[in-house]
Amino acid sequence: MIIDRLIEKIKHTKNPSVVGLDTCVDYLPDDMKNEIKSLDDVCEALTEFNKNVVDSICDIVPAVKVQVAYYEMYGVQGMQAFQNTLKYAKSKGMFTMADIKRNDIGSTAAAYSKAYLGKTVFNGVEVTPFESDFVTINGYLGTDGIKPFVDDAEKYDKGAFVLVKTSNPSSGDLQNKKLVGSETVFEEMANFVREWGKNLVGENGYSSLGAVVGATHKAEAELLRKKYPSLFFLVPGYGAQGATAEDVSVNFDKDGLGAIVNSSRGILCAYKKDKYNGLNYFKAARQAALDMKDDLTKFINLK
Amino acid sequence: MIIDRLIEKIKHTKNPSVVGLDTCVDYLPDDMKNEIKSLDDVCEALTEFNKNVVDSICDIVPAVKVQVAYYEMYGVQGMQAFQNTLKYAKSKGMFTMADIKRNDIGSTAAAYSKAYLGKTVFNGVEVTPFESDFVTINGYLGTDGIKPFVDDAEKYDKGAFVLVKTSNPSSGDLQNKKLVGSETVFEEMANFVREWGKNLVGENGYSSLGAVVGATHKAEAELLRKKYPSLFFLVPGYGAQGATAEDVSVNFDKDGLGAIVNSSRGILCAYKKDKYNGLNYFKAARQAALDMKDDLTKFINLK
Repeated sequence: MIIDRLIEKIKHTKNPSVVGLDTCVDYLPDDMKNEIKSLDDVCEALTEFNKNVVDSICDIVPAVKVQVAYYEMYGVQGMQAFQNTLKYAKSKGMFTMADIKRNDIGSTAAAYSKAYLGKTVFNGVEVTPFESDFVTINGYLGTDGIKPFVDDAEKYDKGAFVLVKTSNPSSGDLQNKKLVGSETVFEEMANFVREWGKNLVGENGYSSLGAVVGATHKAEAELLRKKYPSLFFLVPGYGAQGATAEDVSVNFDKDGLGAIVNSSRGILCAYKKDKYNGLNYFKAARQAALDMKDDLTKFINLK
Repeated sequence: MIIDRLIEKIKHTKNPSVVGLDTCVDYLPDDMKNEIKSLDDVCEALTEFNKNVVDSICDIVPAVKVQVAYYEMYGVQGMQAFQNTLKYAKSKGMFTMADIKRNDIGSTAAAYSKAYLGKTVFNGVEVTPFESDFVTINGYLGTDGIKPFVDDAEKYDKGAFVLVKTSNPSSGDLQNKKLVGSETVFEEMANFVREWGKNLVGENGYSSLGAVVGATHKAEAELLRKKYPSLFFLVPGYGAQGATAEDVSVNFDKDGLGAIVNSSRGILCAYKKDKYNGLNYFKAARQAALDMKDDLTKFINLK
C-alpha cells in the first residue's frame, strides 16, 4: 500500500516533510526570469528550476507536492512544465503529490482520476498524462464524486488527500459550522474520509485516503489527530503561512508519524533570505529543507 | 455587467440553455475515432468536432460550457483542445463557461483566476490562457478562496457559478445536512454566494456570481429559487442525468429567466439516436438543441 511506502521513506529520511513546487516566474532568480519572453520560455524555465531543486533535495526529502494552479496560469505550456516536474521527481525516487483539489459528479470525477491516478484509454493507447502518487480532492459533492479516485487508488496503488480543515483564514466560514447532532462540518468530512478510505488502510494503520489538515488551526488539528487515528494528514500552512513547528507537532502521533508537512515558498525562495546568503537557489533550497527537518523533528518523536 | 448580456442573449435566442462540450474520444463518430493514434490526434479531433458543433449551434444557443476534466484526461494536448474550443466559441459570439470547479486558499485561487478570468503577467507579457466568460468554483474553503474570482469578475466583467446544490446522487451527503440554526449546508452556501456577489448584481437583479443548482433535486431547486432572487442558476442534470423540462422549470422566475440549463451528452451524442437518424453529428446536435429549447420553453414564461 502506497501509504506504507511513504511512511517507510519518511522513517528512512527521518523527515516528515514535503516540498511544495508552487513555482511561478516571480520565484525565479533574476538571470532566469529576464530570459523569459514567451510561454514556451516559461515552461523551460520552470522545468529547469524544478529539476535543479529536485536534484538538490531528493536524497533528504521524501516527497514533492506540485500545486497545479501555478502551472495552469501559464496555460498549455504551464501544464507541460507541471507534467515535466511530476515525471522528473518520480524518476528521482520521490513521492509525487498533485495538489489539484479536483471535484465533480461521478462520471466527471472519473475523468479527472484517469488524468492523475488511473488510465485514459483510446484506440488501444493507454496514458496517465499527469501521473502522481497522490492527489488532493474536495468532498463537497459527497460519496459518488470521491469514489472514482478511491477505486483508482485501490486498483493502481495510489492515494489521495481529501480537504477536511484547510489552512486559510476563512476556512471556518463553512468548515467550523456545527451540524445538528453537534459535530462540525470538518468533522463530518473526516467521518466521510474515514469511511471512504477504509479499504485503503495499510500495515501501519493509516489509510492511503488521507486528509488535508491546515497547520494554522491548531485546536482543530489536535482534535482530528485524536479522533481519526487512521487518517494520515497532509499539512499545509507551515512557514510562509505562519504556523510554527510546535503548532504542527499536534498533527503527529506518539511515534512522530501520521502527517507530512508542506513548505513551498520557504524552500523555493530560501535563496532570497539573508540566512542563506551566497547560496544559489537549489543549494539554498537544500539547506532550508534540512533546517525545516531539524525544526519539525525537534517537537515529535520520529525514530 | 456580463450577467445582463447573457440574459439579453437568452431573450434574443429565446433559449435558456447551454451546450456542454464534454467531448471525449468515445463521443466521436467512428470515422473520426479510428484515425486517432496519438494525443496530438486527440487534440485535433476534439477541436474539429467542437468547432463543427459550435458552427452548427452558435446562432440558436447562447453559450457553451466546457468541462475541463474531459480535456485534462488527455494531458497537455487535451488542454490545447480545451483552449482551442474556448477561443473558437468566443470568436463565434457564444458565451463561454469553463466548468472547472476550482478551489484553493487565497493566493492559489488567485493563480487559478488569472488562468481563466484575469491576467497572468510575466516580464511585461499579459496572457489569459484559458479565457472564459464564466467559471464554476467550489466554496468549501470559504470567503478568501472565492475573493480572487470575485475581484477578477469585477475588474474584467466576468462571472462565476459557485457549487450550491449539485446534481449528483450523493450531493446530499454533506449539502443536505442541517446546520445548527436549522438551515442546510447548501442554503448556507447560497447565503455566502449572495453575500460574495452583492457588488456584481446587474440591471436585471441577478448577480454575475451565480449558483450551480442541479436539476435532479427539484425540491431544493424550488426552495433556492424562492429564497435567493438575485442568484442566477447554472443547472446541470437535464437529459442524460434524468431531469425533465418540467423538473427544470422550477429553477426559473416568473419571466422565464434566472437560470440556464445544460445538456452535454444529449446534444453531442444526438447523432447516435434513432430520432436523429441520417443526420451527421453536428446537424443532429443542432436539431437536438432546437428540441431541447422547445422542450424547456414549454414550461416557462420566457418572452
